Amino acid sequence: MRAGPSQEEIRRQNLGALLRYVHIHGATSRAELTTELGLNRSTIGALTADLTAAGLVSEGAPRETGRAGRPSLVVRPRSDLVYAYAYSVEVDRLRAARVGLGGAILDRREALRPPGILAEETVPQLAAFVKEMHQSVPAGSVYVGGGVAVCGILRGEDGPVHVRPQTGWVDEPLGTALAAALATELESDRPVLIGNAADVSALAEHARGAGAGCDNLIYLHRDVGVDAGIIVGGRRLTGHGGYGGEVGHMVVRPGGRLCGCGSRGCWETEIGEHAMLAPAAGVARQPATTDGRGAALAVVDAASRGDASAQAAVRQVGDWLGFGVANLVNIFNPEVVIFGGTLRDVYLAAAARVRSRLNSMALPAAREQVRLRTPQLGEDAALIGAAELAFAHLLTDPLDATN
Amino acid sequence: MRAGPSQEEIRRQNLGALLRYVHIHGATSRAELTTELGLNRSTIGALTADLTAAGLVSEGAPRETGRAGRPSLVVRPRSDLVYAYAYSVEVDRLRAARVGLGGAILDRREALRPPGILAEETVPQLAAFVKEMHQSVPAGSVYVGGGVAVCGILRGEDGPVHVRPQTGWVDEPLGTALAAALATELESDRPVLIGNAADVSALAEHARGAGAGCDNLIYLHRDVGVDAGIIVGGRRLTGHGGYGGEVGHMVVRPGGRLCGCGSRGCWETEIGEHAMLAPAAGVARQPATTDGRGAALAVVDAASRGDASAQAAVRQVGDWLGFGVANLVNIFNPEVVIFGGTLRDVYLAAAARVRSRLNSMALPAAREQVRLRTPQLGEDAALIGAAELAFAHLLTDPLDATN
Repeated sequence: MRAGPSQEEIRRQNLGALLRYVHIHGATSRAELTTELGLNRSTIGALTADLTAAGLVSEGAPRETGRAGRPSLVVRPRSDLVYAYAYSVEVDRLRAARVGLGGAILDRREALRPPGILAEETVPQLAAFVKEMHQSVPAGSVYVGGGVAVCGILRGEDGPVHVRPQTGWVDEPLGTALAAALATELESDRPVLIGNAADVSALAEHARGAGAGCDNLIYLHRDVGVDAGIIVGGRRLTGHGGYGGEVGHMVVRPGGRLCGCGSRGCWETEIGEHAMLAPAAGVARQPATTDGRGAALAVVDAASRGDASAQAAVRQVGDWLGFGVANLVNIFNPEVVIFGGTLRDVYLAAAARVRSRLNSMALPAAREQVRLRTPQLGEDAALIGAAELAFAHLLTDPLDATN
Repeated sequence: MRAGPSQEEIRRQNLGALLRYVHIHGATSRAELTTELGLNRSTIGALTADLTAAGLVSEGAPRETGRAGRPSLVVRPRSDLVYAYAYSVEVDRLRAARVGLGGAILDRREALRPPGILAEETVPQLAAFVKEMHQSVPAGSVYVGGGVAVCGILRGEDGPVHVRPQTGWVDEPLGTALAAALATELESDRPVLIGNAADVSALAEHARGAGAGCDNLIYLHRDVGVDAGIIVGGRRLTGHGGYGGEVGHMVVRPGGRLCGCGSRGCWETEIGEHAMLAPAAGVARQPATTDGRGAALAVVDAASRGDASAQAAVRQVGDWLGFGVANLVNIFNPEVVIFGGTLRDVYLAAAARVRSRLNSMALPAAREQVRLRTPQLGEDAALIGAAELAFAHLLTDPLDATN
């Protein structure tokens, strides 16, 4: 119901559109920007000048065109100088990275997460990562903010964190604590925004991965639990209060196993990491694989080496994986479903079972349109997606975000 | 990635925003429009003058203010003169209505749909309804287009119609045939757009019914099958190819009853009209209730009168209804779920069972935020929603649509 924008808003929108374009597509000629953004050459020139003056893009000759005539100048994001800090708080490890405009990971750190440690106890480690990385940041760089990917349920982007029972977090203002811990070091009070790991991974794969160009996609993520980052019509499904995408608690087996949420037969109880370990207990109990992720991957590995109980476990989880995906395909008619976290390996090991379930359960029209994929960005999706949270304000209002 | 709009586009946006506001909210003072649309008084005045000249709104004194001082002029949609024709093609009946700007039904016709009749065979009856109603249309009226609500799966808004097996329609260009049949009578080549009954009912309840102001809503519709109109972040979920919302084919009971789609245990097999008839066969076989809708309603009615087998049927369907709703609440975190078609009566008869399932299966955060409702517009939702399809172009570009 909002009315049309003012002149000033239009300039802001155009600056954002141009910066977003080179952020997603990399170096782009002025000629291509003119075509893609539907603006005339002089407007593109003026916008580029503003963004160059703000230190956000640079202009130069293209590398090699092979064409005759004067080549169109190329606009590049200043990936080396404009950056965010991205964090990934996982069940068994902590990661941080410096991510440049354009989505390049410039530096990174990683450590095991001690079992049972609470969210507030991860702040010192994450802050230490950043302090270390910050020493090699070039002079004249522009810090635009931070983003955290966490496993679990979230509400809002800077608000309290509701995380599923297994991780033991409830209502912890992780983003605020991280921003406060680093304010002095970074000489900035820019916020640190928080997103669910599945949601931000979906954003990253949508922007520059297996879902590039797809406006309807589902990114399935598994760690201890299972949830999804869902993009509908080009926008993230959040639901009314930010709790959307909890596909792991779709009941697929009435009266089935008790789930951590209190219900029975949730999809998570059939395809979660623990579901894979029970039928392949011999494999999973090896000393080197005490954590869920390692154990789940060990089962897939053992199956590939011919272990019969592990193969049975992979087949069974593959069947249930396909079952739930078929339901989601009927509900969402997505263009692509991406199997992330440790579901990647399950999918690769049991793709035929997944596809077979899809064929028997999904409606033909929707089934024919969906592609099944693994993350193109691999495990970096969470970090690159967390950085997208931090870049969002810059890409909406470039000059405000750098003032 | 689109850049900001031109001056001409802004004027169009503003005209559309103003017209949409009065279309949804009815008569509105200039003062309120100024506040709600964020535009200054002179802009509102100019926009109103343009829309008045095009015959889309009228201005006048408010009915009674009770306040001192000169009252702000009130802008009203020309509901009496600006209209669409809306059609509803259902399993067992055909309806048509003339719907005025602002969503008022000005005139209507209805007939039984002969069993087994194909879509193309409904065109003469629907066209006859319109020709009859058209005789009492006032001189100077403006016809803006047509919209059809059909049960089944659709692709696109003017394209081929894929309808579920039970209705026997595949790929029929119903909209084109209707527009052609009426072109002479209406002296217009405006298109007749087609929407799924659940989708358009969701639009109507979202605009002016039980979901007004709710940007995340699910409208469940049952006739022979079950599907949903889903609104995510204020926009209709269509999916990649227009097949989204097929919640009736979410499998809730692995290995359950065979569904018309070829799968087993679909939600539709547990809560569809046929599911209710089997356990209450004595009630359903009464001669007066041969059609599915009548039979399903007869079961609810018998249950309310104390018939034990009917009560058992209603309880069982209520349980499964709550089961599927809980899954959808976990996936979508909606603000409201609306029970439409014959699910309305099932929900009213079994609300406690539905709520109980929701309480045991949905995550607390999402469960606490959802309201369960029946359609505020009743069976008119499909007609009013079909008219919304026809009004959409007018509300996007008012002057183009009336030229």
